[in-house]
Amino acid sequence: MANIAKIFLLVWLAAAQQSAGPIFEGKTTLLRPNNYREWIFVGSSRGLSYAANPPAQSQAPASGMGEMYHNVYITPDAYREFTRTGKFPEGTMLAMELLSADTKREPGLQGSYEKEFMGLEVSVKDSSRFTGGWAYFNFSDGRGASYKDKAEPFPASAGCVSCHKQNAETDNVFTQFYPVLRAAKPK
Amino acid sequence: MANIAKIFLLVWLAAAQQSAGPIFEGKTTLLRPNNYREWIFVGSSRGLSYAANPPAQSQAPASGMGEMYHNVYITPDAYREFTRTGKFPEGTMLAMELLSADTKREPGLQGSYEKEFMGLEVSVKDSSRFTGGWAYFNFSDGRGASYKDKAEPFPASAGCVSCHKQNAETDNVFTQFYPVLRAAKPK
Repeated sequence: MANIAKIFLLVWLAAAQQSAGPIFEGKTTLLRPNNYREWIFVGSSRGLSYAANPPAQSQAPASGMGEMYHNVYITPDAYREFTRTGKFPEGTMLAMELLSADTKREPGLQGSYEKEFMGLEVSVKDSSRFTGGWAYFNFSDGRGASYKDKAEPFPASAGCVSCHKQNAETDNVFTQFYPVLRAAKPK
Repeated sequence: MANIAKIFLLVWLAAAQQSAGPIFEGKTTLLRPNNYREWIFVGSSRGLSYAANPPAQSQAPASGMGEMYHNVYITPDAYREFTRTGKFPEGTMLAMELLSADTKREPGLQGSYEKEFMGLEVSVKDSSRFTGGWAYFNFSDGRGASYKDKAEPFPASAGCVSCHKQNAETDNVFTQFYPVLRAAKPK
């Protein structure tokens, strides 16, 4: 009996994970995904920006903390589809979480690490809702890890939309910076 | 019928994920885990080391590439247990993958990102096999992402063992550097 219950629990867990996709309110308001830290991690970067003058979001608010870490995740379904086909299916979400950096230069401890959560941005592929297929959302509210519950997409005229379209290597996704996706892509 | 097949597939997927734990050959030889990039990511750092003179592994081989990125993952079972109890169960594994860094300082692209996989190190908690509960394994073979299939643990006298014991915040795990685990720990 315990085994039967365990099997049902496992089915439920698998189904819940499989069904992780974007949830909208109305046509384009995206609810903040709750479990993105359990998605597939694809890469980290620091202060990475195509802007001639990098936006303030790439820099930590306090001076001396250096460039923020950007941790990027993809939904598990989309990852599995990408490993099979090299394409991102409708419903793909990527989440980028920003963290302040702490740097140690002491005799007994050197290097930098991620200190505090500072922001959350999400991209969604949904051609039925968004011209060009992708939309970009910012859940940061300027108070560190206190993120907004929902967000409107940036307008199609926003810089993020054109930059992703122009500079991202694979269907508006910066696979050139995500070693896990580069390794997972079928040859 | 297709639905029944899908349910069985989901059960299998869930069971496979649930059972992800260390696989040994003999008493202490650890087989390289295959799916660690699908575990739960807990944090990234660059060149982080407690050594007075950081070990060569923390530095990229080619000059000018700067400190390597360290991506750290934990097995999903251990993550879920930690979110409930704040403790790491027997069978916990953490994987640290090292990557070279590429840094751009061009007018139109600035910042650093992860370039190539350079090494893989794994820790395991198994009190029945290892004095002190934890053991550390290095799967790097000095040729980038071409990792060894199995590895022997570092001896109990190795620096990694004493450093983890002395400096890691939670049961030999450096939770002070892993914001995801800090946030997931029950209050």
